[in-house]
Amino acid sequence: MSTPTPDGRAEALPSNASERRASAGPVDRWLLKRIVAALGRPPVTFALWDGSTLAPEGESVGKITFKDRATLYRVIASPEIGFGDAFSEGRVEISGDFVQVLYKGFAALDAADPNKFKRNLFGRLPRPRRNTLNGSRKHIHEHYDLGNDFYRLWLDKHMVYTCAYYETLDATLEEAQTAKMHHVCRKVMLKPGMTVVEAGCGWGSLAMHMAKHYGVKVKAFNISHEQIAYAREQACASGLEDRVEFVEDDYRNISGKFDAFVSVGMLEHVGPDNYGELGAVVARVLNKEGLGIIHSVGRNRRSPPNAWLERRIFPGSYPPSLREMMQIFEPYNFSIMDVENLRLHYARTLMAWLHRFDNKIDCLRKMYDEPFIRAWRLYLGGCAAAFLSNSTQLFQVVFSFPANNSIPLTRQHLYRQGDTLVWRF
Amino acid sequence: MSTPTPDGRAEALPSNASERRASAGPVDRWLLKRIVAALGRPPVTFALWDGSTLAPEGESVGKITFKDRATLYRVIASPEIGFGDAFSEGRVEISGDFVQVLYKGFAALDAADPNKFKRNLFGRLPRPRRNTLNGSRKHIHEHYDLGNDFYRLWLDKHMVYTCAYYETLDATLEEAQTAKMHHVCRKVMLKPGMTVVEAGCGWGSLAMHMAKHYGVKVKAFNISHEQIAYAREQACASGLEDRVEFVEDDYRNISGKFDAFVSVGMLEHVGPDNYGELGAVVARVLNKEGLGIIHSVGRNRRSPPNAWLERRIFPGSYPPSLREMMQIFEPYNFSIMDVENLRLHYARTLMAWLHRFDNKIDCLRKMYDEPFIRAWRLYLGGCAAAFLSNSTQLFQVVFSFPANNSIPLTRQHLYRQGDTLVWRF
Repeated sequence: MSTPTPDGRAEALPSNASERRASAGPVDRWLLKRIVAALGRPPVTFALWDGSTLAPEGESVGKITFKDRATLYRVIASPEIGFGDAFSEGRVEISGDFVQVLYKGFAALDAADPNKFKRNLFGRLPRPRRNTLNGSRKHIHEHYDLGNDFYRLWLDKHMVYTCAYYETLDATLEEAQTAKMHHVCRKVMLKPGMTVVEAGCGWGSLAMHMAKHYGVKVKAFNISHEQIAYAREQACASGLEDRVEFVEDDYRNISGKFDAFVSVGMLEHVGPDNYGELGAVVARVLNKEGLGIIHSVGRNRRSPPNAWLERRIFPGSYPPSLREMMQIFEPYNFSIMDVENLRLHYARTLMAWLHRFDNKIDCLRKMYDEPFIRAWRLYLGGCAAAFLSNSTQLFQVVFSFPANNSIPLTRQHLYRQGDTLVWRF
Repeated sequence: MSTPTPDGRAEALPSNASERRASAGPVDRWLLKRIVAALGRPPVTFALWDGSTLAPEGESVGKITFKDRATLYRVIASPEIGFGDAFSEGRVEISGDFVQVLYKGFAALDAADPNKFKRNLFGRLPRPRRNTLNGSRKHIHEHYDLGNDFYRLWLDKHMVYTCAYYETLDATLEEAQTAKMHHVCRKVMLKPGMTVVEAGCGWGSLAMHMAKHYGVKVKAFNISHEQIAYAREQACASGLEDRVEFVEDDYRNISGKFDAFVSVGMLEHVGPDNYGELGAVVARVLNKEGLGIIHSVGRNRRSPPNAWLERRIFPGSYPPSLREMMQIFEPYNFSIMDVENLRLHYARTLMAWLHRFDNKIDCLRKMYDEPFIRAWRLYLGGCAAAFLSNSTQLFQVVFSFPANNSIPLTRQHLYRQGDTLVWRF
């Protein structure tokens, strides 16, 4: 049995032996062509279980192999979920640079019609699940309560599980996560003595960073039991327990008044049905001269989320378009001051996570089975590819109340270096 | 006959003498109360023609006087147009700091229901006129072809008629306009040898600035005959005629391929009906690795524009919300990279223009009649107030094509100074 290796050259797990021997017929080849066409004909070679291949017109960056006939049919019947599950089970194999192959795949798909690969056999597009109070708790538990030990293996030492900010191209993941936290703090103009509420605080890294470096008092909310427990321990160990309060509760239950509202990487789990309620929470708890920031994965325009990702990795998640995000702000006449798109930063972050994940693959194999590990590699690599191909965005939106003229006049305070930084991937 | 003075203490023109003598009755006072309530009870004293006043509960920043009964009825019948026209004719008088009184008025209105003061006697909200090819030409002619001599009296020496960018609080209008042009050029990352198309180029200042300081070739479009004629003269006088081409034509007729798309202060005249077509033009003419910027007056949320401004000053104009602006970008899968809100910069710019206008009021009186001059003071002061009160925004939106990964990773290249700049008005 061969398994995925850290350099991204995944080999297939065994599939049905008789199927593997059976030659692919004209129907199989016709179905493969149909899949490749729906994918927008990426510069990738596609192969079937008998070794027959379908090469792209120009250069090929790698190979995707369907290891048996059933997998081919499964991908036709339910493209995104079928492909993701088959990869996890080792019935689809990707060779060549893992992220590059996925990137070129997403880019081709995005240039064609992304929805073509989303429709199932009945032409239906997937719909994410709803995030009621109970639903949210269940959905968040499924992902974030996988065990702190799991995440500790491949996240940075501060356990920051959101897009980093690379001020320089040679910054490490740790440096970029620290820079991101400063970037967020500067955007909401934190000053000593201020009070801050954080909606969706992960393992508490940003809340503690704000308290430690900006002298503010933070109340941070999260419904992941494991994360809150970890965050409280950390705050205690760092002597910050009197300045940071971690509350195991839903953002909808936030009360009080604060000088800043911060939410980094929670909106993806809120769902558009609840944007009005999120806006109401912010309008209720933010002081009139306070600034707010919402940092979220997003899209160029409304589109159904990747069904496999929503089903297997992030239940109930939905990355909104900027237009959809306006449902949070417009009812309360919030003024959008600044939107920054950090999609290439998230691509780098995910590539760094994947690299660290692969470096720890031996430890991970002792804790989790192969399909879980393959699924997580597909999630990390696939998301990196989605940000690289621009099919996914990362928006940081800074906003203020209408009567607030204490806002900064320029954004100069966010920057220290003057050079243009271009990353050619 | 007394007239408005440069310090903003406008005195009334003569109205019907018998009306001025007639005492205001209970109906008049009831109507005045109704107007003040619709305005959201600003901290301003309101007075009637017989000297009777209605003072605010707290401090008053100035006084608004209705000089006769007919004016009071006119404002009830058609609030925005009635008020603006009556002020222009000297039948409404504003004393105290002109901008401050208007600012507090807009702020109160914005905190209440802004539409209350918009509905006419029949409860109808105003609708701006449409911008067909012919309509646009007529609308633009009405404002921008008032005569270059008129604008030269009070704009900066480069004749930039859009929001300036104050990098420091002591920058002059000229310096802030130059800084704005550099800010725009940096946002689209101009480099020598690039080609740029500009949609709506005014008197050509930005087009010439780009050619002169960034070594690019510019094709600039405008349908104002007077502006294009002036711009061509200037390009010739500066020896830039081989690098800047001024075309007297509509943005809808732009053809060719360019490395950057720039539009500063045109979108207000496009109208939401045409956003899809504008997006199609950009998608057609912008190279795949090119960046675009659209700079426009906007709103926090969709709302009818000020009827007087649309009728008397900017025919066919409409400031969109960010959500409405997305109609330009979403159909072509453009990626929004950066949105900056410069509303306080436009407040400062308009206050600078009003100051210069007032300094040249003697010259202006030789060229134009009093109602015209009063209307323009109301426009400049009223718009400054609208930006101060946050009822109007200024958005600079930078966007790219999806497959473009040559975008800058950070926005550090836009900034040289690191201090936080807060303007307390």
